[in-house]
Amino acid sequence: MFEGPFGSQLFIFNKNLHKYLNDNVLKYDLNYIQMLFLIRIDKFSNVSQKDLADIFFLTKGYVAKSIKDLENKGFIIRSKGLEDKRQYKMQLTEKALNLIPEFKKINSAWEEKMGLNEINDEFFDTFKKLTRKSIELNEDD
Amino acid sequence: MFEGPFGSQLFIFNKNLHKYLNDNVLKYDLNYIQMLFLIRIDKFSNVSQKDLADIFFLTKGYVAKSIKDLENKGFIIRSKGLEDKRQYKMQLTEKALNLIPEFKKINSAWEEKMGLNEINDEFFDTFKKLTRKSIELNEDD
Repeated sequence: MFEGPFGSQLFIFNKNLHKYLNDNVLKYDLNYIQMLFLIRIDKFSNVSQKDLADIFFLTKGYVAKSIKDLENKGFIIRSKGLEDKRQYKMQLTEKALNLIPEFKKINSAWEEKMGLNEINDEFFDTFKKLTRKSIELNEDD
Repeated sequence: MFEGPFGSQLFIFNKNLHKYLNDNVLKYDLNYIQMLFLIRIDKFSNVSQKDLADIFFLTKGYVAKSIKDLENKGFIIRSKGLEDKRQYKMQLTEKALNLIPEFKKINSAWEEKMGLNEINDEFFDTFKKLTRKSIELNEDD
C-alpha cells in the first residue's frame, strides 16, 4: 500500500501519526496541532503566534484561527505585550496546565506502541539530519 | 528548532516536503496531493476515489473536491463504470499524461537534493516498518 517514493511514505506515516494523536485528544475538544501549540506555550512562555507559524511551518492565518479557538475554549489567555503592543502574550489556563501531563502520556504511549525505544540512535540521527535538510531546501528558494 | 518528540520532527519533515513539492507543481495549477493522485491514476487505471482516500488516509470529501478540481482543470476525465454505475472511472487527459515525466523529475530532484542515495538501506527498512506500524495502530482502534 505504501510502496512508492519515500515522499509518499513520509506523507502516509505523518497522516497516521496525525490521525492517532487527533483521535486521542478529541476528548479534550482539541486537535493534534493545538496540542503541539499548548506544549510549546507551556515550555516557552514568550512564544508568539509568529513563532508557532515558523516552528511548525504553518500559515499565520492558520495559527491565528487555531489560537483564537484555544482562547474561546478557555485553554489560553492572551494579553497585549508591554513592550510591543502588536504582539500578544499567550498564557496557559489552569485547564490547559492540567492537561500537559496527559499530552505527555499520549505521546509516550504512541512511542511505546510504535516500538521507538527498540530503534537504534543511527536511525534517529539520520532522520534528524534529513528533517534539517528538508527545511534548508525550502530556505534556498 | 525541531528538537522535541519524534512526532514533531515527523510533522515538520512532512510539512517541508509538502511545501517543496507544492512550490514545484504550483506552475501546473496543481497541489502536491493532486500530483500524487495523477501518478496513482496513471499507474493503476482502475483506482477509485475511495481507493485514493484509503491509500493516502484522506477523507472522501477531500478526495471528491480535489478530483472535481482536476476534472474542471482538464487533467482527468471521469466516466461512469459499466459494471457499477455508482463508481466513476478516472482517466488522465493528454495534458496530464504529458506531465507525468515532469512529476517524476520533480520527485527525483528532491530525493537527490536530500541526498537520499547516500542513506543506507537499513534506514529505509526501518522507516517502512515504522510507517506500517503507524497504520496498524489506527486499525487496532
